[in-house]
Amino acid sequence: KLPHNNGMNGNGVHHVSVRAPVSVNPAKLKSHRQRWNVRPSEMSKKTLNPIRAIVDGMKLTPNPEKPMIALSIGDPTVFGNLPTDDTVLQAMKEAIDSHKYNGYAPSVGYQKSREAVSNFYSCPEAPLEGKDVILTSGCSQAIELAISVLCNPGDNILVPCPGFSLYKTLAVSMGIQVKHYNLLPEKSWEIDLQHLESLIDDKTACLIVNNPSNPCGSVFTKDHQHKILAVASRNCIPILADEIYGDMVFPGCDFQPLAPLSSDVPILSCGGLAKRWLVPGWRMGWILIHDRNDIFGTGIREGLVKLSQRILGPCTVVQGALESILNDTPPEFYQGTISFLKSNSEICFSELSTVPGLNPVMPTGAMYIMVGIEMEHFPDFQNDVEFTERLVTEQSVFCLPATAFEYPNFFRIVVTVPEEMMIEACIRIREFCARHYRPRSQDSHELDQ
Amino acid sequence: KLPHNNGMNGNGVHHVSVRAPVSVNPAKLKSHRQRWNVRPSEMSKKTLNPIRAIVDGMKLTPNPEKPMIALSIGDPTVFGNLPTDDTVLQAMKEAIDSHKYNGYAPSVGYQKSREAVSNFYSCPEAPLEGKDVILTSGCSQAIELAISVLCNPGDNILVPCPGFSLYKTLAVSMGIQVKHYNLLPEKSWEIDLQHLESLIDDKTACLIVNNPSNPCGSVFTKDHQHKILAVASRNCIPILADEIYGDMVFPGCDFQPLAPLSSDVPILSCGGLAKRWLVPGWRMGWILIHDRNDIFGTGIREGLVKLSQRILGPCTVVQGALESILNDTPPEFYQGTISFLKSNSEICFSELSTVPGLNPVMPTGAMYIMVGIEMEHFPDFQNDVEFTERLVTEQSVFCLPATAFEYPNFFRIVVTVPEEMMIEACIRIREFCARHYRPRSQDSHELDQ
Ligand SMILES: Cc1ncc(COP(=O)(O)O)c(C=O)c1O
Ligand SMILES: Cc1ncc(COP(=O)(O)O)c(C=O)c1O
Repeated sequence: KLPHNNGMNGNGVHHVSVRAPVSVNPAKLKSHRQRWNVRPSEMSKKTLNPIRAIVDGMKLTPNPEKPMIALSIGDPTVFGNLPTDDTVLQAMKEAIDSHKYNGYAPSVGYQKSREAVSNFYSCPEAPLEGKDVILTSGCSQAIELAISVLCNPGDNILVPCPGFSLYKTLAVSMGIQVKHYNLLPEKSWEIDLQHLESLIDDKTACLIVNNPSNPCGSVFTKDHQHKILAVASRNCIPILADEIYGDMVFPGCDFQPLAPLSSDVPILSCGGLAKRWLVPGWRMGWILIHDRNDIFGTGIREGLVKLSQRILGPCTVVQGALESILNDTPPEFYQGTISFLKSNSEICFSELSTVPGLNPVMPTGAMYIMVGIEMEHFPDFQNDVEFTERLVTEQSVFCLPATAFEYPNFFRIVVTVPEEMMIEACIRIREFCARHYRPRSQDSHELDQ
Repeated sequence: KLPHNNGMNGNGVHHVSVRAPVSVNPAKLKSHRQRWNVRPSEMSKKTLNPIRAIVDGMKLTPNPEKPMIALSIGDPTVFGNLPTDDTVLQAMKEAIDSHKYNGYAPSVGYQKSREAVSNFYSCPEAPLEGKDVILTSGCSQAIELAISVLCNPGDNILVPCPGFSLYKTLAVSMGIQVKHYNLLPEKSWEIDLQHLESLIDDKTACLIVNNPSNPCGSVFTKDHQHKILAVASRNCIPILADEIYGDMVFPGCDFQPLAPLSSDVPILSCGGLAKRWLVPGWRMGWILIHDRNDIFGTGIREGLVKLSQRILGPCTVVQGALESILNDTPPEFYQGTISFLKSNSEICFSELSTVPGLNPVMPTGAMYIMVGIEMEHFPDFQNDVEFTERLVTEQSVFCLPATAFEYPNFFRIVVTVPEEMMIEACIRIREFCARHYRPRSQDSHELDQ
């Protein structure tokens, strides 16, 4: 069947874009490229993941006599000892059986799913409605959208040091400068507020606060957060609060979300299902827009909506399951995860704090523990990268060198592994350190084995 | 429990980023912003969705006496008459029950899922392996990554006119210029190859070819695709082939993927589950890297991997289900969808081709039909936007004005609606046209009702 000829001539009757010459200019045809020259874009080249850059550069050949123990991956599901709750899986299956969640959702998410999130996180001091929630493809995309909407090329953002590397990866790829503010290990990894404030200038578009912290496992007090807010308020800097580990704090410690503590500082709080619900692969994240003083106004909200239209939101099946996941998961599930993380952290901390040359910092939340290395006592190694590399070669234990978080002379341990593995890893780390420790710093390597 | 004080002073012992002064400079503190001024970024402002811009500007108040019929949404699931296959749903439930797909996958997707896609699309002329597949969050993200890796700001890309609006939305937001090449309705919407070639210049980074086409419903012949490839080859321009409607062609017509027809032109073919498997909300897409002549080389591949690390790939549950979805969905399912789309297209075409003033173009694939409006016979309306707006007000039928695809004087009908609705919609369109048609163009509106 031939298509109906509607009598229009494609050349000219309908709209033609302004810059496009319609008649063929033979001279122009000559200007075509004479050879293939396809190069990756600057943006893709600037999208650098420091963890990959460091890990790919390491020689990670485990000792064949010892089974590998990876304490490096921030994925609580890898060892099977921390399964998600059945409620969560059941909610997914019901979403599938309902046949209601196969079509396109609005790019910011179904209204009902947004409301499920806003109800879950709303509180009297920081009320939230469905319109204040943008559903995203993981917390990673929440962070990407938040940075994208707040910052222009040439602006700078303030990020924690040590800190999660994605902030820098994203910012640098967008031509945004990154300034690192220090966290103080001796003050439970609180922010060095003076240092933070000293970094602020006219081009500072956003302060990123990550609490509880990856890689530190630290949790800020209410008081400290008031002080952070005071800095932001005084300098009129909006905050991106990365609270993906929100509520994952050990008993005796309280998680205080940032937004309820301020009524003037506009805050984009980023979160998701990845960590607390133990399903990082499902790629369900969100942005909570806190703007009680109407500083973001409609501009930022509309900007987020527009940006969400680029890839059209997270998987609808997970969106359909969200209400039940948030409302029906039993408290015991959350408590179980937390007490496991706490117990493993305590094992790891108490094992390693008696190892000469190591200084673990006890975490109070999240799923990490940072361990300082007194490098002057380990002359066999130049830095934390070499230290952790050799820990693999000799002991088949892999921890991320904290250089990956812009924080040399530390390494990070993930505490989600099964307890026996945690214990075995600590024993091997102790052995390793005993073998390489030198009581006082030495200039020569004459005692090397 | 107090954290272990490791004796380090956060100010200085560890790495400090170069540009960050560590000691506080009081003069600097003065330079802080004195008032709030948070504005959405240029990038978010440049992320314009023309469909939204046009539709949001329309007065879409249906006639209260007639139930609304929306022929506007490219979502085959909205009316419930085109459910996905049970195999597809079953595969998802099995992926959930396996407990294997909750953790992070590699950012480009599980190797097994990538191999499922490469096996499904590999053919002797264009063999594919797992490494040639990047899994993405919908075909939208596949397009975003492909444009991002191939183009720099200041480059231009060639996009079809009429064409899917996302190409422009993404490109403009990245500072990439868009040049529209014409499709010829009287030649089954083939590309005006002369026009296409005339647009190419030194800054042309990529040619986007969408086949089968949204909004045209057209399917290119093998012969025409050879000619497109010749233009790309002569000018050394890589191709982004948007083949999301691949294989959705009516009986008697063949779908020919572009890549097997060329051994020199490097092609990123973008696809996904959205259309053929009728689950657009699941956000599963992919890029197939065709580069038999090694023109992309490792640069483009590595660029795609890096870009995928920004948001870490599509939902793992869908990834886990992918192998079974691709291999076990029965052929009858695909055939059923296609024969429904063909039958509805024929109803719509034959109904509307006898309406004075309208010129539908019979599709051969995808799920759309384009209808030309002889605007000179409808003096009541300035353009296709007004025409379709009044069609809502008077007849409660909503079709997208093709201005949304940069192609005025047409409108697009989605043919996935139930048959009765399709018929009823055509009757109402006929009535509407009869009421407003003027046998020859008139300067005055004296005959207006
Ligand atoms: C601090 C922090 N923010 C964000 C993310 C990303 O979360 P998602 O997997 O939801 O993208 C992670 C993941 O490790 C993280 O540690
Ligand atoms: C031509 C074309 N390409 C890409 C897409 C986007 O597909 P997805 O929903 O998988 O992102 C669409 C959706 O309508 C389309 O029509």
